Amino acid sequence: MANAEQQSGKTVAFKIGLLGLGTVGTGVVEILNDCQGRQPLLSQVAIHRVGVRSPDKPRAVSLPPELLTTDLEAIVRDPAVAIIVELIGGLEPARSLILTAIANGKHIVTANKAVIARHGDEIYSAANQAGVYVLLEAAVGGGIPIIQPLKQTLSVNRIHRVAGIINGTTNYILTEMSQAGADFDTVLAEAQRLGYAEADPTADVDGFDAADKIAILASLAFGGRIRYEDISCEGIRPVSAADIRYAAGLGFAIKLLAIAQCDEHTQNRLQVRVQPSLVPKAHPLASVNGVYNAILVEGEPLGQVMFYGPGAGKGATASAVVADIANLIGLLAMSHADGLHPLYGCGHQHYCDVAPIAELVTRFYVRFFCGDESGVIGHIGTCFGQNAVSLESIVQTDTQDGIAELVVVTHDVREGNFRAALAEIHQLQALDNITIQSILRVL
Amino acid sequence: MANAEQQSGKTVAFKIGLLGLGTVGTGVVEILNDCQGRQPLLSQVAIHRVGVRSPDKPRAVSLPPELLTTDLEAIVRDPAVAIIVELIGGLEPARSLILTAIANGKHIVTANKAVIARHGDEIYSAANQAGVYVLLEAAVGGGIPIIQPLKQTLSVNRIHRVAGIINGTTNYILTEMSQAGADFDTVLAEAQRLGYAEADPTADVDGFDAADKIAILASLAFGGRIRYEDISCEGIRPVSAADIRYAAGLGFAIKLLAIAQCDEHTQNRLQVRVQPSLVPKAHPLASVNGVYNAILVEGEPLGQVMFYGPGAGKGATASAVVADIANLIGLLAMSHADGLHPLYGCGHQHYCDVAPIAELVTRFYVRFFCGDESGVIGHIGTCFGQNAVSLESIVQTDTQDGIAELVVVTHDVREGNFRAALAEIHQLQALDNITIQSILRVL
Repeated sequence: MANAEQQSGKTVAFKIGLLGLGTVGTGVVEILNDCQGRQPLLSQVAIHRVGVRSPDKPRAVSLPPELLTTDLEAIVRDPAVAIIVELIGGLEPARSLILTAIANGKHIVTANKAVIARHGDEIYSAANQAGVYVLLEAAVGGGIPIIQPLKQTLSVNRIHRVAGIINGTTNYILTEMSQAGADFDTVLAEAQRLGYAEADPTADVDGFDAADKIAILASLAFGGRIRYEDISCEGIRPVSAADIRYAAGLGFAIKLLAIAQCDEHTQNRLQVRVQPSLVPKAHPLASVNGVYNAILVEGEPLGQVMFYGPGAGKGATASAVVADIANLIGLLAMSHADGLHPLYGCGHQHYCDVAPIAELVTRFYVRFFCGDESGVIGHIGTCFGQNAVSLESIVQTDTQDGIAELVVVTHDVREGNFRAALAEIHQLQALDNITIQSILRVL
Repeated sequence: MANAEQQSGKTVAFKIGLLGLGTVGTGVVEILNDCQGRQPLLSQVAIHRVGVRSPDKPRAVSLPPELLTTDLEAIVRDPAVAIIVELIGGLEPARSLILTAIANGKHIVTANKAVIARHGDEIYSAANQAGVYVLLEAAVGGGIPIIQPLKQTLSVNRIHRVAGIINGTTNYILTEMSQAGADFDTVLAEAQRLGYAEADPTADVDGFDAADKIAILASLAFGGRIRYEDISCEGIRPVSAADIRYAAGLGFAIKLLAIAQCDEHTQNRLQVRVQPSLVPKAHPLASVNGVYNAILVEGEPLGQVMFYGPGAGKGATASAVVADIANLIGLLAMSHADGLHPLYGCGHQHYCDVAPIAELVTRFYVRFFCGDESGVIGHIGTCFGQNAVSLESIVQTDTQDGIAELVVVTHDVREGNFRAALAEIHQLQALDNITIQSILRVL
């Protein structure tokens, strides 16, 4: 951090200006304030200025007070700042601040899906002209890496379809409606109480947030810009408890899907839409529940891949924002040193210190055959207990021809202790012909 | 392609030498021979030489015969070649060819998990010294983007655990054992007959392939090299049909998990292991079936993300290999033009041609209320039929106070036709008080 620069003696090469210190901004500062054990490039970042509305408000993160300012315009024009991290959201003043920053030669990291979906043309044209990057991993799918994989690894495929559950609020509501059999209004009120839905839920429940996000994904997957008004958008208000019940009877879950797709039906013209949809229960998207997001990408010759994870929240979204900062530093650092991009090369030279297997702590499943004698379970239980192996269950599953079959599931135990208990069980004089049939771990 | 260079007039900037023309090599040539609609950087690639064992063997892809050679050593020394794509697999001669290529200043793309897991130290040390990249997206998870996300987006997190189903053969066998109740030997024989398992299945069923792959993932996630002998490795031979049955009864699926993890039990020393494991049925890894792979990454502050897709196969693996080629070209091209990395910037300027919603083809679910009169189903069916809307089912779910509830599911239909049918149904004189309760799509 800037103020610790002198004490730590670390070289700060890249100064960032942060616009907004709400939930995600706080998460970003927390990561940058605590770099140990993360991507080494982050040690080259300093937070130079932070634009906020109320500089005197108590904050959950420690930042030198002199970094805070209400003058966001000054931050995007500050010659010392290399990267602007825009986390204020909404269309204005975000759009104007981004454009001014670009005009001043700053690279942009943003989590703002709305401003990119609706003003991406203007913003990317300006960025290309100025020779700066606009990165937006956090704008779709929160912490799920989807933007950069679409630009890189997946881009050698001909993409046929991107289909996602990309709004956590509506997925939470549909999951609750499905599991509790409750109706939309009841669940929405509960979601608002828990903070999963906004007081004005329109952007989420009417599909506009998902429409912004699918516009961005479609643009990357199909290599062209998307006019926002070309997107067909329906929300989840029409979905009733009865529909969810009937759909379940027919073998479907109901999900709000955002889909961008090219097929022969529309002569390979793109389709971009957000619609509540019945998803077959065996389909990987059907079991994505609660506030989780998932994005399915289908292409040739790849086939189908799916990305799953937390679509929102402080830590997840901040992770994606800081990843973009690291990506930028990697790109900017290439002109130094050996010229290799640090995120593509191998930066470590040492070997990891790997623990011996006896020290692992895990749950075990073990199946025995043994003589069907009285006290067998007691004897085995005692051997485990003497070695500090705590059991979750011990069940005699079958007896045939005087041979009993026992299945034991342990709690978390040290592997060394578990092995010692097994050795003792083997030597039990009281037990005839005890054999271990299988030992498996439990996740 | 090189031979079409004159005709097409395209600028070929990067010549690649391909070692091996088996299944994956053929897939790579197929993508590079058919670039339209893919990442534009691929137009800068030319296949310069292809090293094979039998140059006269009939091939599934068209390549000018003069590109083929049995002299692999000459390819890795060829001054014209910028990138070596190593697809011969195994330890030798792959290791020696890679090291010679690096010594000659070539960048490396490889799908060879064994050579990287066991000789990564030597290979990466040589690469760092020579200032070249060694990329290996295809080595783990086939077409699933996991290597580059671990290096980039996920690397700002403190990773706690990487847990994956990363061997398709064993997952196929366990899935079949679970679904058919069959034992290991029977299912293995069937898998060998179908080509999902090798004649010598040891590398897969004894966990060695998964061990190579988790060594690579652990190295990236935890930022250090892994000694192969530090990995605890157990295969699936000990798993019996009885275990799968009992595990199911306890609420678990059995999967071969590869896990790299740091926790307080081992004083934050790393654990790296491959073991058959009971996975709770609600866990996202439990429903990964057949030859599919999935990799779960847990970190702070991200939480949990999962990557799912085809872990092997010609198209999927070739997609990852070609993605690495595109990544390399992006890095090498940065010194040209405006200096922006093409895979991070926005390369497109045009708007996509988006089809109007009436042209979409999808399945629909629609729920009606209507008077409980005779012939209702017939009338509605006729309206749909006259508009070329083919029905999968039409069910009267409920009748109360003279009001019938009908649920209709269509086959794939043009949205315009579906809307026209609904308009006609609305105007039916024969039906009293017909109201549409909800219209949903079916994926």
